[in-house]
Amino acid sequence: MQPSRHDQKLEFILRTAARIFAEKSYHSTSMRDISRETSISLAGLYHYCKSKEELLFLIQDNCFGRVLERLEQRLQEVDEPVAKLRLFIANHLSFFAANMSEMKVLSHEAESLGGDLHAHVSTRKDRYTRLARQILQEVQDLRDNKQPVDLTVATYALFGMMNWIYNWYDPRGKLNVNDLAHHLTQLFIGGFSPGLLLESPGSTVLSARRENLSIWRGSAS
Amino acid sequence: MQPSRHDQKLEFILRTAARIFAEKSYHSTSMRDISRETSISLAGLYHYCKSKEELLFLIQDNCFGRVLERLEQRLQEVDEPVAKLRLFIANHLSFFAANMSEMKVLSHEAESLGGDLHAHVSTRKDRYTRLARQILQEVQDLRDNKQPVDLTVATYALFGMMNWIYNWYDPRGKLNVNDLAHHLTQLFIGGFSPGLLLESPGSTVLSARRENLSIWRGSAS
Repeated sequence: MQPSRHDQKLEFILRTAARIFAEKSYHSTSMRDISRETSISLAGLYHYCKSKEELLFLIQDNCFGRVLERLEQRLQEVDEPVAKLRLFIANHLSFFAANMSEMKVLSHEAESLGGDLHAHVSTRKDRYTRLARQILQEVQDLRDNKQPVDLTVATYALFGMMNWIYNWYDPRGKLNVNDLAHHLTQLFIGGFSPGLLLESPGSTVLSARRENLSIWRGSAS
Repeated sequence: MQPSRHDQKLEFILRTAARIFAEKSYHSTSMRDISRETSISLAGLYHYCKSKEELLFLIQDNCFGRVLERLEQRLQEVDEPVAKLRLFIANHLSFFAANMSEMKVLSHEAESLGGDLHAHVSTRKDRYTRLARQILQEVQDLRDNKQPVDLTVATYALFGMMNWIYNWYDPRGKLNVNDLAHHLTQLFIGGFSPGLLLESPGSTVLSARRENLSIWRGSAS
């Protein structure tokens, strides 16, 4: 379904806001900055959103919503725990690499929302974290490891190695996102469950070139 | 050598500023906020530092300076590459866990400094990153791995899994920092160089309880 003209414009505002928040932080960005960058008047902006806080909420909610939705769809196609883990990593990284500003905002401004908006985003985030942990548990249960890595440490180590890429990775550089996913998967699974890699099928490649991985539905950019 | 009264007071200002920057970001903190929290008048603050930017610089410079200095000292005691890597991880995490606010500021405000101050901190950061990469290269050279993990990916994956702890780890919780270092080391080395862990000596434990690991020299807190 084609997004409406209203939705397209809102997405344009959200994408621009995400870029500015990523560049100079949420707190030091004003609605006036967003008005200037979008060439939409202040009054026009307030037609699309009630406040700067609502913009931040919509960015964060869209991010988690899209990543989670796509992951849950894809997970229906696989049963094997290591394949699930590969899928999880590939899905996360491909969205991340296609939405670097949004993901930086997600990392840096996690505490900038308050009240119900914060609670809503936190609920999605917790669901996503639980899903990761559950997959890791399934992988760990595959074999009897005498010195298993603590599951909490492993879950956040995985998020750390993936999310840190906004500090160094250039999606337009020579390392494409499939290779990035391949190396991080090898690194993580090799340490988390030694020996398993040799037994499991090859790398999961999300069809990053054909699929629109922007978290914004209406845009091809 | 005992730090002078001037240095002690400057450190108190820096530690307080780091805590506020970590809580509400550098950009939205004013010198007035720092004055209020330290109970030092604005005029008094400007006796210790020229600007808010200088405070941020001193926090970042102290962080990298202390972590790097301690690491270089400790590395003189070991030759074996895996032992060096264990040491690197243990050193980074023990400083990180003892200075969570400062490290969060280091991660979030990397781009908030400009000009010479930014260049100075970047030089130290590059030296630290190169040192990590060099140790990983030495570990990788220990054995012939047919599918080595890309060294750049591995270096930043290591920093990612370590630095991400400010999002979830509570140094006063049930997982102490030595156990955290142990699990992350096992996870990373196991994936980076499969099989090596079995051959290398046990975990490196920095004497976290006896040593002052605050990045601030004058303080015991």
